[in-house]
Amino acid sequence: MEILAICGSVRAGSFNAMVVRTLPLLAPAGMKIVAAPSIESVPTYNADLQANGFSNVVLQIGDAIHKADGVIIVTPEYNYSIPGILKNAIDWVSRLPDQPFKNKPIALQSASQGVLGGVRAQYHLRQILVFVEGLVLNKPEVFISGVQNKADASHGELTDGSTRDLIKQQLHAFETFVRGIKRNAIE
Amino acid sequence: MEILAICGSVRAGSFNAMVVRTLPLLAPAGMKIVAAPSIESVPTYNADLQANGFSNVVLQIGDAIHKADGVIIVTPEYNYSIPGILKNAIDWVSRLPDQPFKNKPIALQSASQGVLGGVRAQYHLRQILVFVEGLVLNKPEVFISGVQNKADASHGELTDGSTRDLIKQQLHAFETFVRGIKRNAIE
Amino acid sequence: MEILAICGSVRAGSFNAMVVRTLPLLAPAGMKIVAAPSIESVPTYNADLQANGFSNVVLQIGDAIHKADGVIIVTPEYNYSIPGILKNAIDWVSRLPDQPFKNKPIALQSASQGVLGGVRAQYHLRQILVFVEGLVLNKPEVFISGVQNKADASHGELTDGSTRDLIKQQLHAFETFVRGIKRNAIE
Amino acid sequence: MEILAICGSVRAGSFNAMVVRTLPLLAPAGMKIVAAPSIESVPTYNADLQANGFSNVVLQIGDAIHKADGVIIVTPEYNYSIPGILKNAIDWVSRLPDQPFKNKPIALQSASQGVLGGVRAQYHLRQILVFVEGLVLNKPEVFISGVQNKADASHGELTDGSTRDLIKQQLHAFETFVRGIKRNAIE
Repeated sequence: MEILAICGSVRAGSFNAMVVRTLPLLAPAGMKIVAAPSIESVPTYNADLQANGFSNVVLQIGDAIHKADGVIIVTPEYNYSIPGILKNAIDWVSRLPDQPFKNKPIALQSASQGVLGGVRAQYHLRQILVFVEGLVLNKPEVFISGVQNKADASHGELTDGSTRDLIKQQLHAFETFVRGIKRNAIE
Repeated sequence: MEILAICGSVRAGSFNAMVVRTLPLLAPAGMKIVAAPSIESVPTYNADLQANGFSNVVLQIGDAIHKADGVIIVTPEYNYSIPGILKNAIDWVSRLPDQPFKNKPIALQSASQGVLGGVRAQYHLRQILVFVEGLVLNKPEVFISGVQNKADASHGELTDGSTRDLIKQQLHAFETFVRGIKRNAIE
Repeated sequence: MEILAICGSVRAGSFNAMVVRTLPLLAPAGMKIVAAPSIESVPTYNADLQANGFSNVVLQIGDAIHKADGVIIVTPEYNYSIPGILKNAIDWVSRLPDQPFKNKPIALQSASQGVLGGVRAQYHLRQILVFVEGLVLNKPEVFISGVQNKADASHGELTDGSTRDLIKQQLHAFETFVRGIKRNAIE
Repeated sequence: MEILAICGSVRAGSFNAMVVRTLPLLAPAGMKIVAAPSIESVPTYNADLQANGFSNVVLQIGDAIHKADGVIIVTPEYNYSIPGILKNAIDWVSRLPDQPFKNKPIALQSASQGVLGGVRAQYHLRQILVFVEGLVLNKPEVFISGVQNKADASHGELTDGSTRDLIKQQLHAFETFVRGIKRNAIE
């Protein structure tokens, strides 16, 4: 089972990127987690641009989603919603022919330096994913608060034990969820 | 009274841009409505970029908001939320020192080619504007459905009579709302 | 396949109740749709009351959900959200041991006399159903606007052809959705 | 200045009711905070009932809102939204002639035993209050997490120092907010 992790932040020292880097260490046996192409170079969406074709990075992200058995979106919260840069990437991908998110199993994670762990971003993201017909795991939800105290910036990894345990539980639940959806797609 | 109109779409033939162009014709005497600098060239947000300073377009949008007595945001709905490109512009502006949206009167309008007129985008936008402490007009709300049949693309303007009337009512209510907030700021 | 329809309105001439009554006529062969016990007599929630046990109507609704292969919630929108009376029924049911909504396939419909068809209620309901771990169908979404012109009050049924077609499409999609979830539960 | 506090929970030992009881101790000089009539005996909403007139408790709550200079709603979160019982009370009040919430200054507080402090309830409540045209304070927001460790159940009061300070700050901001709105209403 191959899972694609999309990161909603593009700064070099991003805590959410640290979470993405830590995911493979927490995955159950048989689940391979790979990072999606960075959304950094996705152009700002404009239907006039789209008329000239999709840029390579959008095509690559779309292909990676298609190939994957499931997607994990790991994102900060900006201004009580998802980052514009992440929404913009979704806006592009959602216009691809054979829309990649359709019926794709998706799990959500968010990390913030505050006490609420990005909760407001995740419910906006869930509403967005209704439109593109993603199949989003309900629980366990992963909201990582105070992430600056739960990561080792020098190694670039999430170190907090209980957070790692929660993520393991989510990945385990997601494995079952993905397997069920794959089975249905075959029959 | 000077009101700044920010458009959430950047394509050349944007129906929301048509609405923005029509606003000055519908404004009450004494309300001047000017279009904000286009959000098209706002770079995608990255805190590492911000460390090197804000780009000119972000500074210009921030200054225009500061100078204005109120702001009208006119936006399409993409994927059941606001466009990533609009959210990205807000993400940049919200990091400016002396944050421009704080205590600024704001009215919302959305136009779509579907039957719901962008309603889902507006409630996400309202939540985002809580963070930046905008003062958002409650009613009348302006959701323009089937906008392709309510505009004259050759003249680039909104032509539908009842939609123009609804916008006039909102602008009139907004004028009273802005005046009250200005008075409080002085005292 | 047996599907339970829960109605969010309790007034005698409710348009949403008309939709519920029409559902069996629109269901695919092999799908039986039955109305849930009315939520009218569910007491207002109070944890102190719960300490004395669940009322019969709550137990009956819970049992009906358990027995059903899937649930359709048909509701008006009150004050930009779901009716308090519907939320209150969910609040009670969600406290039942062996929580009935967990992993239950759910489809949503809303009808209103306005132009937006209850759209705001459905996204609040989707967020609520994340907590109780319902599995909610993405599309097609059913928002019935101007329902007073789409129903025959004397017969108490929904008569509008295109609305009936849309509901048929949703029921067909829901049948496939329910079948997939049942198969996974068995394996 | 008289402020009305509405509590979203009706159980005897409610932590949110403890917050309401503590508010008068935290109010700035010149702000009197009184508890609204309990929402416990508000009947479940039904338009057929309404046709026979409003019950006394609904009329009393409506009058209390009318008389108050502002309203504070203090509520738990049930199932990722506001309690059905609170929504039901709002559904009744919103139907009163001369709708009481219109242009009324409103502040929000929520308390929960979990780590998120009821955040999801508050954004649903903000959307509901757009419909009834309440004027809702933006910040500071008050989300009280782990409230069972911040209250003294034997005295029935909120004891945690930093939470009390946050509430003081909100009440101070609300006082300024209410004063501005009153001034505008007069002119």
